Amino acid sequence: MSDVLGLLRAELGERVDTDPGSLDEARADKSGHRSPERGIAVVHAASVADVQATMRIAHRTGTPVVVRGAGTGLAGGANTGRGEIALSLRSMDRIVEVRADDLLAVVEPGILNAALNERLAAHGLWWAPDPASRDISTVGGNIATGAGGLLCAKYGVVRDAVLGLDVVLADGRLISVGHRSVKGVTGYDLTALMIGSEGTLGVVVGATLKLRRLVPGTTRTLTATFPDVRAAAVASAAVTASGAQPAIMELMDAESLAASHALLGLPSPLTGAAQLTVQTDGIAAADEQAAIAAVLTAAGGAVRLATDDAEAAQLWQVRRSMHPAMERLGTTLIEDVSVPRSALPAMFDEIARIETEFGVTIPTVCHAGDGNLHPNFVFEGAVVPGHIWDAADALFRAALALGGTLTGEHGIGVLKSRWLADELGADQDALQRGIKAVFDPTGILNPGKVFASQP
Amino acid sequence: MSDVLGLLRAELGERVDTDPGSLDEARADKSGHRSPERGIAVVHAASVADVQATMRIAHRTGTPVVVRGAGTGLAGGANTGRGEIALSLRSMDRIVEVRADDLLAVVEPGILNAALNERLAAHGLWWAPDPASRDISTVGGNIATGAGGLLCAKYGVVRDAVLGLDVVLADGRLISVGHRSVKGVTGYDLTALMIGSEGTLGVVVGATLKLRRLVPGTTRTLTATFPDVRAAAVASAAVTASGAQPAIMELMDAESLAASHALLGLPSPLTGAAQLTVQTDGIAAADEQAAIAAVLTAAGGAVRLATDDAEAAQLWQVRRSMHPAMERLGTTLIEDVSVPRSALPAMFDEIARIETEFGVTIPTVCHAGDGNLHPNFVFEGAVVPGHIWDAADALFRAALALGGTLTGEHGIGVLKSRWLADELGADQDALQRGIKAVFDPTGILNPGKVFASQP
Ligand SMILES: Cc1cc2nc3c(=O)[nH]c(=O)nc-3n(C[C@H](O)[C@H](O)[C@H](O)COP(=O)(O)OP(=O)(O)OC[C@H]3O[C@@H](n4cnc5c(N)ncnc54)[C@H](O)[C@@H]3O)c2cc1C
Ligand SMILES: Cc1cc2nc3c(=O)[nH]c(=O)nc-3n(C[C@H](O)[C@H](O)[C@H](O)COP(=O)(O)OP(=O)(O)OC[C@H]3O[C@@H](n4cnc5c(N)ncnc54)[C@H](O)[C@@H]3O)c2cc1C
Repeated sequence: MSDVLGLLRAELGERVDTDPGSLDEARADKSGHRSPERGIAVVHAASVADVQATMRIAHRTGTPVVVRGAGTGLAGGANTGRGEIALSLRSMDRIVEVRADDLLAVVEPGILNAALNERLAAHGLWWAPDPASRDISTVGGNIATGAGGLLCAKYGVVRDAVLGLDVVLADGRLISVGHRSVKGVTGYDLTALMIGSEGTLGVVVGATLKLRRLVPGTTRTLTATFPDVRAAAVASAAVTASGAQPAIMELMDAESLAASHALLGLPSPLTGAAQLTVQTDGIAAADEQAAIAAVLTAAGGAVRLATDDAEAAQLWQVRRSMHPAMERLGTTLIEDVSVPRSALPAMFDEIARIETEFGVTIPTVCHAGDGNLHPNFVFEGAVVPGHIWDAADALFRAALALGGTLTGEHGIGVLKSRWLADELGADQDALQRGIKAVFDPTGILNPGKVFASQP
Repeated sequence: MSDVLGLLRAELGERVDTDPGSLDEARADKSGHRSPERGIAVVHAASVADVQATMRIAHRTGTPVVVRGAGTGLAGGANTGRGEIALSLRSMDRIVEVRADDLLAVVEPGILNAALNERLAAHGLWWAPDPASRDISTVGGNIATGAGGLLCAKYGVVRDAVLGLDVVLADGRLISVGHRSVKGVTGYDLTALMIGSEGTLGVVVGATLKLRRLVPGTTRTLTATFPDVRAAAVASAAVTASGAQPAIMELMDAESLAASHALLGLPSPLTGAAQLTVQTDGIAAADEQAAIAAVLTAAGGAVRLATDDAEAAQLWQVRRSMHPAMERLGTTLIEDVSVPRSALPAMFDEIARIETEFGVTIPTVCHAGDGNLHPNFVFEGAVVPGHIWDAADALFRAALALGGTLTGEHGIGVLKSRWLADELGADQDALQRGIKAVFDPTGILNPGKVFASQP
């Protein structure tokens, strides 16, 4: 190990960081999960050459490498432990090129999503993926997790917004996949394969992003309150089925709504009440808002239209306070199942059943426009208790049975690897491990993540 | 070989077709290329079980299998030769499910694109990928080639429009990849990997398609004529750069415009004149048409607005006659390079250079909205002459140098396999071959296609 450190220091000098505070930071992401021990070093790469040097040393010495963006992941994917190098790309944060005529930008992976979008706005452009963590997460991390966001039912997720990638392989070689052209079908789509690969196939060191022009017009916001979460879920499915296209449609169940209100010092909502918050945008924003309001009213909702941007911001504040509100209650395990939109009411029924069966409450928010739910498990202490994992297990099985998935946007990381094969089936699991072995024959890229050790 | 036939007949009876006419048909697609000899048999699969039975026999006997949709491919991908089984999915053409509320359909692979869209229209829905061959090509073939189309700059290509796939593997096992939910990031994106894999990784036996609602409003069409192709290309890039979003924007160079006019008996265009044909759609179709007309006029175009649908159909007839017009002139090799949209003028300069250098004319049409060009080489006889391949080689290198690709939508097949590694580079080529080996360890799925025999 000291040998590895020596090699790293000889090539990378001060960019090799063994400060105990840095090593501790690298043990965790925002999942609440943390590696039991510290890693060897954090390498703060400043260039592609730094990444290549690190990977060459890791390859030669058989040392595991955990790639790290901003560490905001919710699956433990960036957690670095004993004997591992944390390879941080956070300092590689330049914008190499912005082309308004070709609607593309070339960037380094460490730039924060929001920082990029601020710069793009000056060109009348934006990169659509908008995880709620956009102020604090990197574009490289967004790509490596296949991140989604609030706007994605209308504007797509990361996999819809990347043209090409530069990737450093496990042994330090650099390849480029994809292209700058809109279309291209030469060979297998390795760009798509890298998206969501969670640091297990290679290190994303550059990205050619597909941009959009800023949406003209203003946004409109409304809330609709329902007597219970099932009614809210039925209403959101009715909005989708009506053909209206909200830019954002978020659902808060009774527990999360009450917790947010409490945090903000707002009057308590009626017992059991759940809420939808809906934003429309573009030149038809007002018409679409009216159409959606009609659907929600017909579905039994009490609709409130924000009269101006300040009121809209207030309404969104309630949704945005969900995460801090949960943190006040204890440690949270944020789950991430996704189901077809018509199955949202059934999924909320399943959550209610699981709450009863396991004696837990599961405050849930949901990107209702695309069927992605974030059920939260709140508990005391640092370790997820067994009965909570049992309840989570029941949750995953329910989502799969409804045609859905374990994870809509956060990824597998360490936290969900033991359920991976349940969703994929043994045959697909074996194919995925086969692909992993093609890219990383000696298994040094994020070992123990995504794939549980034993097939 | 007779052993293979016996095994196939024992399990599949009359669905095993050894009629010489059928075997000859299976030797070719629409590329003009044809296998030198006949294959063993055409299996007309009627069910997933038939596909599995065929693959199990092929696996056991080491017999190559060429999967076939409608055989409209332009890369020779479905061509079946000596010692090979053609596995036709054309008869598996059922629509299993249409869900307007979830904007999805589950279909068998053999259904024709246009037949599917006719049925979806009754639900107010459509599947956006619209290859010019939509009346005659299958959804499975569209998926296996990663097809594009005219509308794709605005509405996306196949890779944007598939949620999940059922795939029979090389040894007959059946897997399901992807899901019915909009979002999902469990493991590597094998759905994306299958799209464009040209029958080399598995047999697509079912698809869960992502649908759109029919676009409200009417369409508007205009043409703009320019003194030369460079001016037309500059104008089309100006449209993209202006932020206007045509539904379709097609460019015809002087030779293709003249040939279409001749076929249709229209007056000859001015010497050298090139043309853009642009369609706008949606509720803002008229406004967008006006904005685009202004850009094109400013760029020196003579603009003509179609006053009604009949006139629009006439204008489109000219573009649609390009392919038949070429066929009248001789055998055509239809190329398919794609470049960033801003590079279109430079690419047309390169084509002019190559025409001079190799003493050939290269009539070219172009999906100008997305930068995908179809340069046509016309020659006598059935075999592409050497100097034409040399000119094509120069064309590919020019596209790559401009940040583009060998193939925007038609695929590699047999016709372009010798250039694959030029685009991918040796390292990526090896990774792609590694993936191929994971899915097809004995190499029975479409051998000789995509990957040239020697790395
Ligand atoms: C408050 C909050 C809200 C959130 N909201 C959302 C949301 O709405 N949608 C959503 O999708 N996620 C959300 N997340 C989760 C998280 O922000 C995303 O997963 C994000 O994409 C992670 O980016 P990061 O830079 O922090 O990556 P990290 O956490 O550092 O890494 C995540 C994974 O990607 C790998 N990785 C990172 N960079 C690279 C690279 N350059 N090359 C290869 N592998 C790499 C790591 O190894 C790890 O496996 C939220 C998190 C928080 C704390
Ligand atoms: C006039 C004309 C216009 C065209 N316009 C366009 C266009 O605008 N855009 C475009 O992209 N293409 C176009 N094409 C090319 C062609 O139509 C497309 O490539 C189409 O997607 C092929 O579909 P198919 O069913 O004919 O497939 P085939 O030609 O039968 O097969 C094509 C490839 O896919 C594989 N394959 C087929 N079905 C399956 C399956 N179920 N599972 C696994 N592999 C399979 C085959 O092995 C082969 O490699 C055009 C062709 C013609 C003749």
